[in-house]
Amino acid sequence: MSFLESLQWRYATKRMNGEQIPSEKLNNILDAVQLAPSSFGLTPYNVIVVQDPAVKAKLAPHCYNQPQINESSALLIFAHWTTINAENVADYMNEIAETRGIPVEALADFSNVINGKVSNSSVEDLQVWASRQAYIALGFGLAASAVEGVDSTPMEGFNPAGVNEALGLTEKGLNSVCILALGYRDAANDYLANAKKVRRNKEKLFVNF
Amino acid sequence: MSFLESLQWRYATKRMNGEQIPSEKLNNILDAVQLAPSSFGLTPYNVIVVQDPAVKAKLAPHCYNQPQINESSALLIFAHWTTINAENVADYMNEIAETRGIPVEALADFSNVINGKVSNSSVEDLQVWASRQAYIALGFGLAASAVEGVDSTPMEGFNPAGVNEALGLTEKGLNSVCILALGYRDAANDYLANAKKVRRNKEKLFVNF
Repeated sequence: MSFLESLQWRYATKRMNGEQIPSEKLNNILDAVQLAPSSFGLTPYNVIVVQDPAVKAKLAPHCYNQPQINESSALLIFAHWTTINAENVADYMNEIAETRGIPVEALADFSNVINGKVSNSSVEDLQVWASRQAYIALGFGLAASAVEGVDSTPMEGFNPAGVNEALGLTEKGLNSVCILALGYRDAANDYLANAKKVRRNKEKLFVNF
Repeated sequence: MSFLESLQWRYATKRMNGEQIPSEKLNNILDAVQLAPSSFGLTPYNVIVVQDPAVKAKLAPHCYNQPQINESSALLIFAHWTTINAENVADYMNEIAETRGIPVEALADFSNVINGKVSNSSVEDLQVWASRQAYIALGFGLAASAVEGVDSTPMEGFNPAGVNEALGLTEKGLNSVCILALGYRDAANDYLANAKKVRRNKEKLFVNF
C-alpha cells in the first residue's frame, strides 16, 4: 500500500476490538512520534503511553466513556509543558552538544535565541506554542499508524483536568491536549468503518499563488 | 526507503537549490495534507500554495529574509480560520451529505454538537483550536514530503501580520501560523545537511503506564 493509500485507509475508528498491537508496530509508531520536528527542536511536550487496562479504565470517565479508551491496545496522550524556562533550554543544549560531539559553548547564539523567545512570551502564548508542536507529533503518530496498518482515533473529547489528575500530569508540569487511541477496528460495530471519507475538496482547501 | 528511514532522512533544510519539485510529487504532498484529519472533520484552516517567484520575493522580508523562501520550489502557508460560525458548520454538513449521499437532516445531532462547541467557545479559544488542527495537516505535509524525497522546512520565524497582508489573508478570515517550504537541499551551503539529528531520547519523551 502506498503512503497515500494508507492515509486513505485510515479513519477515526469509533469502535476497536481489544486486540493488542505487536510491540514492533507500536515501537515503530513511537519512533515516528519521536522523529517529529518541533520549533527549534525543543520538543516542549511529553507523550504518555498507556497500555495498562486499569489505567485506561480510570481515564474512561474523563473521556465521556468513549469505547475506544478501553477497547484500544494503547493510548498516546500528548501533553504540552505548562512552563518553559532557561533550564529546559540548557538541557536541550546539552542534548545537542552530546549528540553532535560539540562543546555546549558553541551553541550560545542558538540558546540565546530560544531564551529570548521564552522570556518575551506570556505563559499562555508559550502553552499555545507548545501545544502546536505536540500536534505535529500527533500528525506523525497518525501517519505512522496508518503505515503500520494500525487503526487510530485522534480524540479531543475529554476533560483535560480529569486526565491530568488521573495521571499526575499537573505536578509534572504537563497538560494533556489530545489522545491518540491505537488498536484495531471493530468493523461490525463501527458505523464509520465503511462510510466514505469526507475531506474538503482541493479547490476550497488550497489557495494558489 | 521505509517510512521511518524517510523520517530520518528529512531535516529542517536551511538552504535549498531552487530546483523545482515535479508536479506529481507536489500533488502527492497536497493529497496528504488534504487527507489529514481534524476535530469533527471541520478542517478550520486553508493552505496557501505559493509557487510564483514574485510572491515569494514579496513574502521574504516578512520572513526575516530566510533564504528558503526564495530558494524553495513551493511554500505551503497554513492559515487557520479567525472565526468559525454556524454557516461554516452548515457548509460542512452539506459536504458530508453530498459525499455520503445522505440527507443533510440526518446530520442534525452532529451539527448541534459542533455548533454547541463553537458557540460556547471564545474567539481566542476557537483560534487556538483551529491552529492546532492546521498543525496536524502540517505534520502530514512534512511526512509526505519525506516519503516523496522532497526536502522541507517548517517555519514559524515570520511576521504573521506581514504575511497576512502580503497575501490578503485577513480579509479572507485567515491567519498564517506556519510555513512549510518545499524544495531540494543545497547540501554544500547548508550547515545542517550533514549534522546528526537531535531528538529527545525515548526515556525522556515517553512516560509509560
